Amino acid sequence: MLGAYLQGQATEFLRSLRRHGESGAAGGTAADAARTLRRAARRISGTLHTFRPLLDAEWSDELRPELAWLSGTLAQEHACADRLLRLTDALHRLTSAASGTTGGGALPQQAATAPASATTLALGAAKAAALLDRQLTLARTRAHSAALQSLGSPRFHAVADRVAVLASEVPLAAGGVALPKLAGEAESRLAEAVNALHHTGGRLPTPYNPDADAPWHHVRLLLRLHRYAQEVLPGADPAPVRLTAAAHALNTHRDAAEAAAAAAHAARTPRIAPATAYALGVLHADQRHQVEAARNAFGKAWQRERVGTP
Amino acid sequence: MLGAYLQGQATEFLRSLRRHGESGAAGGTAADAARTLRRAARRISGTLHTFRPLLDAEWSDELRPELAWLSGTLAQEHACADRLLRLTDALHRLTSAASGTTGGGALPQQAATAPASATTLALGAAKAAALLDRQLTLARTRAHSAALQSLGSPRFHAVADRVAVLASEVPLAAGGVALPKLAGEAESRLAEAVNALHHTGGRLPTPYNPDADAPWHHVRLLLRLHRYAQEVLPGADPAPVRLTAAAHALNTHRDAAEAAAAAAHAARTPRIAPATAYALGVLHADQRHQVEAARNAFGKAWQRERVGTP
Repeated sequence: MLGAYLQGQATEFLRSLRRHGESGAAGGTAADAARTLRRAARRISGTLHTFRPLLDAEWSDELRPELAWLSGTLAQEHACADRLLRLTDALHRLTSAASGTTGGGALPQQAATAPASATTLALGAAKAAALLDRQLTLARTRAHSAALQSLGSPRFHAVADRVAVLASEVPLAAGGVALPKLAGEAESRLAEAVNALHHTGGRLPTPYNPDADAPWHHVRLLLRLHRYAQEVLPGADPAPVRLTAAAHALNTHRDAAEAAAAAAHAARTPRIAPATAYALGVLHADQRHQVEAARNAFGKAWQRERVGTP
Repeated sequence: MLGAYLQGQATEFLRSLRRHGESGAAGGTAADAARTLRRAARRISGTLHTFRPLLDAEWSDELRPELAWLSGTLAQEHACADRLLRLTDALHRLTSAASGTTGGGALPQQAATAPASATTLALGAAKAAALLDRQLTLARTRAHSAALQSLGSPRFHAVADRVAVLASEVPLAAGGVALPKLAGEAESRLAEAVNALHHTGGRLPTPYNPDADAPWHHVRLLLRLHRYAQEVLPGADPAPVRLTAAAHALNTHRDAAEAAAAAAHAARTPRIAPATAYALGVLHADQRHQVEAARNAFGKAWQRERVGTP
């Protein structure tokens, strides 16, 4: 089971790599190939971690960090593009709502104070969007270059060679540990981390404490390991709706947290107009609100799972 | 019933006015007297509105706008003080959360982006607090002067004279309309306005549309009229927990909306530092979230009422 799964992912890795090379490293095909390459790299890395006692330990411990480096490097370009899209969409939503005129039964005294907020935001939103576009496009271009450089590096070729070997032969260890036992341990680690969440940040008392994000990011990684372990297990539903929903919420959580940080970072650009900084402040708070909403969404998805598991 | 209620409120009005005069128009006693004066003025005005067919129409239509003018003028000073407190507290909460270090299991890559947000906010928060303090203290001082001026004006003396007459004799009309019927109509107007809310703004699609606030402010006024009408009715519970909770939520809604507008207004001060503007943007968005939270709180309180009313 474990051997076949790893061989399958290694084959997928190599196929994606070939597609990426044939695409000329640009355009939609290249992006799609990079995505499936990362996908396979994450699965191999996660499987080596969860089922480590069943594999050659030295080989496993050497390959894992290399796969993490690779998928991390390849993820950056895509992340920058997504972040820009997320922030631009949010600015658009915030300003179109603020300047919208649904009217009807407005009380004169409140109506007099309302347009000020809308105008203040509209003033800076366009400039804020331009600033973010500049900064994140630059970051994206750098990430693209870094990814291309990585794919041409001796370090990458060494990883690719190892994965090629893995595709034909999985270095299994002589061990008596059962697959389900190790998968169960991955699930337990996840459950423990989720329980710890509810003790700390679950009640949303401090929306702007970035330290409180870390345990949630950690749960995201543990949930991923759990999901991959389920893919390996014979007979297990590899992608139950509940886990998919929970994973989706934690991805949104991560994206919103990083988008909020990007807005805050942009606000520290020297010599920007106060209106731009104001819009970035609104945007930052909006994304932090999305972070809270994602935590709630995760909580709901997770509770649903609890009910489903007798 | 109606006569006795109006006489009681008129007596309360006159007693508060005397206390205010004796206090020298400054300090805690004056503030408390102004509060009870407004309270009585609102109740008289609301009662004249709801039970208009039972009262001398011409007298009622003349007195009502004068009472609204008076309670509006007296409310401003208190509102400015409350708004400053609300905004200062929010800034404190936002920055203390951002600079807090709960730590534990932080992932290096997320931890690296987090402090930037915290620092960006901390930079501007102190300046934003100072700016708001300056602007709202000035507004408060102006409101205080305006209130004193109003209390010394011929217009006010005319109102006080009319209320003095009301304390001894209520100009009832010869009408056959029953008290409960008119109170029921006030309740129906409230229920209709609440139902209309759920069709438009209840689903929180556009957090920053100030036009969407107006129907909620309108419901706040209708709920107040309903509550006052219940005070007049014999045997009715004058302040059931449900209505009190709903009214509290709508007061918070109004306060948060006005605080958000004040933050936006402050951000338009010429020549402020970008960091100050950023903090005001975060603050604005935070208060708009409080607006949404207050709408949810009202929804819950109102639903509870529905269940309680068979």
